[in-house]
Amino acid sequence: MGSNKCDSGPELQDNPLYYKTFPSKDLHEKFFHDVFDLILKEAIFEGVQRDKPVVRFKLPENLEKILHLKLGKTPVKTQEDLLDLLKEVMRYSVKTGHPYFINQLFSGLDPYGICAEWVASALNSSVYTYEVAPVFTLMELEVFERMRDMVGFPRGQGDGLFCPGGSMANGYAISVARYRKRPEVKERGLCGMKEMVMFVSEDCHYSFKKLASFQGLGMKNVVGIKVDRKGKMIIEDLVDQIEISLEKGQDPFMVAATAGTTVLGAFDPIEEVAKICQKYELYLHVDAAWGGGALMSPKYRHLLKGIEKADSVTWNPHKLLCAPQQCSTFLIKDSDVCTQTHATKATYLFQQDKFYDAAYYDTGDKHVQCGRRADVLKFWFMWKAKGSEGFEAHINHIFGVAEYCVQELKSRSPAFQLLMEEPECTNITFWYIPPSLRDMNQKSDEFWEKLHKVAPKIKEAMMRRGSMMITYQPLRHYQNFFRLVIQSSEVTKEDIKYFLDEIESCGKDIEV
Amino acid sequence: MGSNKCDSGPELQDNPLYYKTFPSKDLHEKFFHDVFDLILKEAIFEGVQRDKPVVRFKLPENLEKILHLKLGKTPVKTQEDLLDLLKEVMRYSVKTGHPYFINQLFSGLDPYGICAEWVASALNSSVYTYEVAPVFTLMELEVFERMRDMVGFPRGQGDGLFCPGGSMANGYAISVARYRKRPEVKERGLCGMKEMVMFVSEDCHYSFKKLASFQGLGMKNVVGIKVDRKGKMIIEDLVDQIEISLEKGQDPFMVAATAGTTVLGAFDPIEEVAKICQKYELYLHVDAAWGGGALMSPKYRHLLKGIEKADSVTWNPHKLLCAPQQCSTFLIKDSDVCTQTHATKATYLFQQDKFYDAAYYDTGDKHVQCGRRADVLKFWFMWKAKGSEGFEAHINHIFGVAEYCVQELKSRSPAFQLLMEEPECTNITFWYIPPSLRDMNQKSDEFWEKLHKVAPKIKEAMMRRGSMMITYQPLRHYQNFFRLVIQSSEVTKEDIKYFLDEIESCGKDIEV
Repeated sequence: MGSNKCDSGPELQDNPLYYKTFPSKDLHEKFFHDVFDLILKEAIFEGVQRDKPVVRFKLPENLEKILHLKLGKTPVKTQEDLLDLLKEVMRYSVKTGHPYFINQLFSGLDPYGICAEWVASALNSSVYTYEVAPVFTLMELEVFERMRDMVGFPRGQGDGLFCPGGSMANGYAISVARYRKRPEVKERGLCGMKEMVMFVSEDCHYSFKKLASFQGLGMKNVVGIKVDRKGKMIIEDLVDQIEISLEKGQDPFMVAATAGTTVLGAFDPIEEVAKICQKYELYLHVDAAWGGGALMSPKYRHLLKGIEKADSVTWNPHKLLCAPQQCSTFLIKDSDVCTQTHATKATYLFQQDKFYDAAYYDTGDKHVQCGRRADVLKFWFMWKAKGSEGFEAHINHIFGVAEYCVQELKSRSPAFQLLMEEPECTNITFWYIPPSLRDMNQKSDEFWEKLHKVAPKIKEAMMRRGSMMITYQPLRHYQNFFRLVIQSSEVTKEDIKYFLDEIESCGKDIEV
Repeated sequence: MGSNKCDSGPELQDNPLYYKTFPSKDLHEKFFHDVFDLILKEAIFEGVQRDKPVVRFKLPENLEKILHLKLGKTPVKTQEDLLDLLKEVMRYSVKTGHPYFINQLFSGLDPYGICAEWVASALNSSVYTYEVAPVFTLMELEVFERMRDMVGFPRGQGDGLFCPGGSMANGYAISVARYRKRPEVKERGLCGMKEMVMFVSEDCHYSFKKLASFQGLGMKNVVGIKVDRKGKMIIEDLVDQIEISLEKGQDPFMVAATAGTTVLGAFDPIEEVAKICQKYELYLHVDAAWGGGALMSPKYRHLLKGIEKADSVTWNPHKLLCAPQQCSTFLIKDSDVCTQTHATKATYLFQQDKFYDAAYYDTGDKHVQCGRRADVLKFWFMWKAKGSEGFEAHINHIFGVAEYCVQELKSRSPAFQLLMEEPECTNITFWYIPPSLRDMNQKSDEFWEKLHKVAPKIKEAMMRRGSMMITYQPLRHYQNFFRLVIQSSEVTKEDIKYFLDEIESCGKDIEV
């Protein structure tokens, strides 16, 4: 650590104000500028160019030795040292905005989103009461109204919540659906009730099981419905499972369809699911955390046909629309049920003798969070900067690149083999088959056992190179395969070729 | 909106890249700098000086007319217009970092915390796997270890979670405690079980009721234990309520003590509560979301005496220690139970055939969130910049200012009357008694009915002036009183005088 640098001013402990939790121009102005320049260089411009690594990967035991993570009694000596620490953090962090990061359902580096996030951090608001967050309260109302429009919910009604992630948004759906069916659960709890059961696609996000467990419903009461070979929920199985549940004397209350499954990017047939929900009087939630962005494009919104029939929707603008994390929303047709389900009317925060309409504008009591960051600002600001036509152009662009990727993979047979021949979203799933396996019988168990070991080895090689990051996973009976995900508008057709070249380069000599 | 400004470059729609989710030096570099300058001016330096308003308050219906919130198909015309929008947002947002914002259990504007938050936003990491967040994964391990040291938990064991707020941290406590008592709930749920019951101080944070309801336990199964006149849980009542619950055939599983109650700042007698928990084999959680910061000071940590006997602790560094929101932690003595309670082992994310020790370093599956921001960075960086001795100095400073405030209030009798004569934390609770009420019989209902109306009126007046923000609330049998909260090290003795002068100025002519 450069403790002997000359322009870093007096040592921190020498300054009687070093512990202060308020900025001083004398002490901090230069530091703010230095940090900002560092961010621009390392995280926004130079550091995320194609000739720079996505990650400088070290195993945990090695990275621990490199980083100066230990905390102690005394501060580091100078602000220069503090800058060095931030450099270290940036150097060894994954550049998730890099065009070669195609590893998760988030990526990209939206300039307007980031700027807005910085503003939100500096304002440090908590969006629970109008008095503390007047601008963000009104902004949320506007954003939710426009998002509900995009979903196709009726005008003049409805509600919305910004959530700390899509998992929690799905948790809100469970909570509200349960309240609708059995409002007494709020006060009395589930003990002594009939088993409440919900139905999801077997390819749905794991948050349904996780949140159902957290919410006391139990993992086993989340019934996975079989999917067809395109990864879509099979309606006949849904009906069967509902009937079985009724026969068992259980209390079915909800179906969650998925619009864009996590791995395959499949869209459940919402219209048909909606009919079943109507017949059995079940709450319909659509988890469009991933696929929701396609609503912005007239060309692709047919994928979510029928979504307006849902009772509620999860939609994460931080996924397909590239808002910085976290930006997750729960949108609902009903205006009141979020409040009815969750409000506890704490009198120290939600006083009802305020001089404005607190019952309407103090929105915090709908949430299970108390303090809550202004996640709305980044998305609102991006929308201002792009308009919905900008989001449309973005969606059309990335879906186009995904379509190109599918063609490119097909043209590289037999090295690559698609799992989903015609993916609907921008997830592209495929195996790389190294030369050593190409002559094997693809119907043999041995082939698949060997192929299962290929993706992890390629992943390790590319991580160690830092050349790109793509994920792999097994799914149901499918052995480990790659999932390439396109969200960032920076990914080009040239990049697609690079990805496949790189996989071939890491994998061609693999013997398993 | 200044669409005719000259230096804003070409109109956004004219640029074929306007929708791109990746920064371009040509298009965005100046914009980044402009935004940064704006933040420094409006939110960090000039905008939060004492001669500037804390808020430019407008009623919702008026603010809606001033702000350009509406979203549409086309983008705003230029980046200059975008800057204007951010100016508007900052102008009408509450300056929560302003020294005259003493309204909530957060305030202050820590320069190192904010810088780190900007870095975290630009890196846009999600802390669920080591491969995606190597630095932050190790950093969390270090921070949790040091925080557990501060609590006094045994070395070489334990766990921790960053949470989206203290409410969720308390929710984790409920979840883990329930799993400890009845592990079958994870899979089977609560339906058909005996009623599970928990015990909290009647002055505890509302999140216990809210989360217990969300988690299917029911609000009525959160039993409020009476508090004494200092706001501390009465042990005899705790024992009585546990016995009553057992007699009813219920299944008591947890006690949550509070270290720093939301309104009065009271510390429950943890050591005595721990003895009761041991006797009845109940899980002990301590909600130190607010008071936890006092652990950093040898002078004040006696307030939390016995906290090391707890099974788990909620501690929010974004409260007393002034980290930017959100920075909430759940600390636990047990190394494994968070994983046991919450893990669902999603194979697409938590692959077990990775080339590093994923079972240990992929920490995401302990959480109910999937994607999760790197809240650790800001707190770690502040700790580096201050050392624990810096946090100690901060705590000692703000507790000292609070003690001064109590003296000042006493000296201003009969205008001010303390509710808690000797507050333990930095919440100071008091009534302002306007001249028109000073001759009334303080034992009459009429006096208190009238006094109840005073605080809302003063609050309205100061909001309209923008001169300061302090909250008021009723509590149990107490009519509306003020709660002044000190966290920011920027608040001085002079400021205390200003606060009381301002309350007198807003309240002296009130007739109710």
